[in-house]
Amino acid sequence: MHAAGDVRVEDVPDASIKAPTDALVRVTRSCICGSDLWPYKSHAGEAMRMGHEFIGVVEDVGAEVSTIKAGDVVVAPFVSSDGSCTFCREGLQTSCRQVAFWGSADVDGGQGEAVRVPHADGTLVVLPVPEDDALMPGLLTLSDVFSTGHHAAVSARVGPGRSVAVVGDGAVGLCGVMAAKRLGAEQIILLGRHTDRTDLGREFGATDVVAVRGKEAVTAVRELTGGDGVHCVLECVGEEASFLTASKIVRAGGAIGRVGVPQFEALAGARPSFLRNVTISGGIAPARAYIEELLPDVLDGSLQPGRVFDRTISLEETPEGYRAMADREAIKVMIA
Amino acid sequence: MHAAGDVRVEDVPDASIKAPTDALVRVTRSCICGSDLWPYKSHAGEAMRMGHEFIGVVEDVGAEVSTIKAGDVVVAPFVSSDGSCTFCREGLQTSCRQVAFWGSADVDGGQGEAVRVPHADGTLVVLPVPEDDALMPGLLTLSDVFSTGHHAAVSARVGPGRSVAVVGDGAVGLCGVMAAKRLGAEQIILLGRHTDRTDLGREFGATDVVAVRGKEAVTAVRELTGGDGVHCVLECVGEEASFLTASKIVRAGGAIGRVGVPQFEALAGARPSFLRNVTISGGIAPARAYIEELLPDVLDGSLQPGRVFDRTISLEETPEGYRAMADREAIKVMIA
Repeated sequence: MHAAGDVRVEDVPDASIKAPTDALVRVTRSCICGSDLWPYKSHAGEAMRMGHEFIGVVEDVGAEVSTIKAGDVVVAPFVSSDGSCTFCREGLQTSCRQVAFWGSADVDGGQGEAVRVPHADGTLVVLPVPEDDALMPGLLTLSDVFSTGHHAAVSARVGPGRSVAVVGDGAVGLCGVMAAKRLGAEQIILLGRHTDRTDLGREFGATDVVAVRGKEAVTAVRELTGGDGVHCVLECVGEEASFLTASKIVRAGGAIGRVGVPQFEALAGARPSFLRNVTISGGIAPARAYIEELLPDVLDGSLQPGRVFDRTISLEETPEGYRAMADREAIKVMIA
Repeated sequence: MHAAGDVRVEDVPDASIKAPTDALVRVTRSCICGSDLWPYKSHAGEAMRMGHEFIGVVEDVGAEVSTIKAGDVVVAPFVSSDGSCTFCREGLQTSCRQVAFWGSADVDGGQGEAVRVPHADGTLVVLPVPEDDALMPGLLTLSDVFSTGHHAAVSARVGPGRSVAVVGDGAVGLCGVMAAKRLGAEQIILLGRHTDRTDLGREFGATDVVAVRGKEAVTAVRELTGGDGVHCVLECVGEEASFLTASKIVRAGGAIGRVGVPQFEALAGARPSFLRNVTISGGIAPARAYIEELLPDVLDGSLQPGRVFDRTISLEETPEGYRAMADREAIKVMIA
């Protein structure tokens, strides 16, 4: 990405193994993230290599890699992590002491042909399927979007019998609906205004759809919940307005799980949230912590998060994929 | 309280039973709260009746009161609640559908001779001791200050092996130290600059004291925790600066339990807390939910939260009590 709106497919030096803990992965599937659209709107400065969600086949591994071998089909969470530090052991791999973000510094981006994966043992998860398996779209969502929706649900303390609202009908929000249903939520209210998306949300488990915004949305959610609001809000947008909506539809004693990257400075309403004992939780999702837990439900077909991909393009068409997502023509674009 | 700095002891109409769920309680002990000092600094407008922490003897009860009887020695949490609504059943009595605050509308203040207690069955807890028992100071802390410190610790997810920082060396902070120790915290760092208070904090269980503020405090806490910060922060002040300190000393993946009434509008650092998966929790403490749990440790003397009272005055001396607390001459003042 050279600047806002300017994504190009360019030749870069071939990915190669540099450290004994590296793996070299040939990318077979990657995708474009809602969070890629923030720089697509506003990026200035040096060109960036893009893409942090991918599945691929291991081509080679460094001398110290022990659990990953050439030929393995692997999914990469959206950061690399060593798997052994205190934060990794606690399941917060996004705060790993050796964390690296795809596309940053000398780490390759996932929207490309191949990637050097640092700390391959800690980072990659082997998939027990061939590289052209029909489940690939669903498995690819473990890299970020489904794991992130799940993180929102966990952070918002979704559980059996809980009422849930999901703010945002993007791919993360839709996966949040699915995750909330999986965790036993009783009522799942999806806030979104794109019928194609909210229809998919209903198939994923939404019991109600609120297609208005702001004050009207707050009123609608309160009416759907006997006036009290919901136990759990999954904030899947990251704008100040969406956080404000979240804070007004959450029930006293409830929790907001936020996974939309905040495009604002401060969380408004310090006193109302205090008086109502609202918990604000979540953050950048430690996808690596969740993949093993979510994998069986994707492998056996009981969950189909891959349905968030409604367009597949070639690597060369990547710029067009960004445009389609930015213009809301596509929910989420797969590069295969 | 007629205005900032202007507290007077005045005759008001006698408290009396108005509803069949009321009890009439003769106040034997009450006290002044750190939160009373906010209006003492800045109150304007109509005069307010003060005091929300008290112990007393039941003089009479309404026809529908079934668990409380005349002669009972009782402690009142700092709001009255019906004990039967969904919020009460969930342990969030501060959001009770019939909540009432002492000193508001037609509910008497606790800094007085007698109080009409609405919803006596839901509100009051009977104490198995005579009204002049030596344990009274400790039992009085269950009304608010110790329960609030405990709420901070619970909200900050204190548990065995956790590292904890307590921001603020007032009575709530000191009770937070005690609550953190009770819940099994391994390291308890008390941030405060008043030696008399931090000395008591050490006796309550603080393992370290940080007597500087702002950036220096952040550096000191990080040094005491191997650079990472603490798992749990108890924010017991309510100023923007103290929240900022809390947000900078909390470890990635950690939690802030805030119980200081916020004197500011928005929680700064929406993005750093997101990137570090920091949870912000807490609020006005549902003291009623905790009294039964904390009571045995006070009754058997294993905890002595009553030590936060370092001055006892008569009801007539109440204005002087406010002055002493505002001038930091006293940690917490009991009226007996």
